[in-house]
Amino acid sequence: MALLISSASTSLDGFVASPDDDPGPLFDWYSAGDVVVPNAGDLPPFHLTPTSAAHWRDWVTRLGCVLVGRRLFDLTDGWRGRHPLGVPVVVLTHRPPTGWDHPGTEDPTFATTVPEAVAAATAIAGERVVGVAAGEVATQLHAAGLLDEVRVDLVPVFLGRGRRYFTDPDAPVRLSGPSSVVVSEGVTHLSFPVRR
Amino acid sequence: MALLISSASTSLDGFVASPDDDPGPLFDWYSAGDVVVPNAGDLPPFHLTPTSAAHWRDWVTRLGCVLVGRRLFDLTDGWRGRHPLGVPVVVLTHRPPTGWDHPGTEDPTFATTVPEAVAAATAIAGERVVGVAAGEVATQLHAAGLLDEVRVDLVPVFLGRGRRYFTDPDAPVRLSGPSSVVVSEGVTHLSFPVRR
Repeated sequence: MALLISSASTSLDGFVASPDDDPGPLFDWYSAGDVVVPNAGDLPPFHLTPTSAAHWRDWVTRLGCVLVGRRLFDLTDGWRGRHPLGVPVVVLTHRPPTGWDHPGTEDPTFATTVPEAVAAATAIAGERVVGVAAGEVATQLHAAGLLDEVRVDLVPVFLGRGRRYFTDPDAPVRLSGPSSVVVSEGVTHLSFPVRR
Repeated sequence: MALLISSASTSLDGFVASPDDDPGPLFDWYSAGDVVVPNAGDLPPFHLTPTSAAHWRDWVTRLGCVLVGRRLFDLTDGWRGRHPLGVPVVVLTHRPPTGWDHPGTEDPTFATTVPEAVAAATAIAGERVVGVAAGEVATQLHAAGLLDEVRVDLVPVFLGRGRRYFTDPDAPVRLSGPSSVVVSEGVTHLSFPVRR
């Protein structure tokens, strides 16, 4: 089955955005270099360091699907039907939207339970990876024993407050490794297999 | 002047202990290997991996003094007068203790303000480094613009709750680097210069 791997730019105190969903300095590394990396969607291209660009391309090449929560989906208006990573989107939500329509794009898949979402995402991904957004979805997958790996683009700042990578304070997330460490400018890319 | 460098075993969400001061899995790396590293104080020796042992010895060799807060000092009973790192101790506290006496040991230095504590610690350290304990003291030094570097022994776990490395949620701590990355078993040793 496809591996389920979460990924997020993360502060040294485990936040992935400010309380009002602003990534702030956590996304500075997307414009820290001279390598132009286009997006599949409507966003402007990234400007990465050579090290981060190689790391990014390796990640994107591995992806077959992304699994996201409703918050992120709404914040981005579903990326107007074209995810920046160029892969199909599965959305975990209790309330599938009605009337969401972006002609000429691929409709996302809406799933109302974790098992349904994982089944849909892994079927789409096939041999490739399901990329899981941080926050509530990653937390729910981990609680269900379904998360395989946690990627952290570690940004050297303690933010003090914000939205957490894992949202359940009563459920520690125990990892091993890191299995991979890539040091770039303004970010250290780390991968941690989930300990079972 | 001596550099002021904080150091702590830290979770991926920036905690240095549980809410009741238990380091829990954050200290597992102190017993993850076969290299016996004795303490200068009463604690049993560490058993470190060769990689962590070399990193540890380099750190201890650089130290001239440690600057700690009252909480840590009380939790350890002032290490009974002999700090595990074998260096003098400066304690920042509003209420210097009376009657604290461990015959045959060196008395700690008590200071009631940040400038006094820094002056005492840097005078003792001379050309060497002042090691600063995490938590309120590191936060106060950073707020005063006096912290030079932040060391993180990064343990691959999201704890969800606990005592924070930096305690002021309204004062982000912006760092650069890492200037050093050492990957060991169960811990990644990172150093981040403070960005000014």
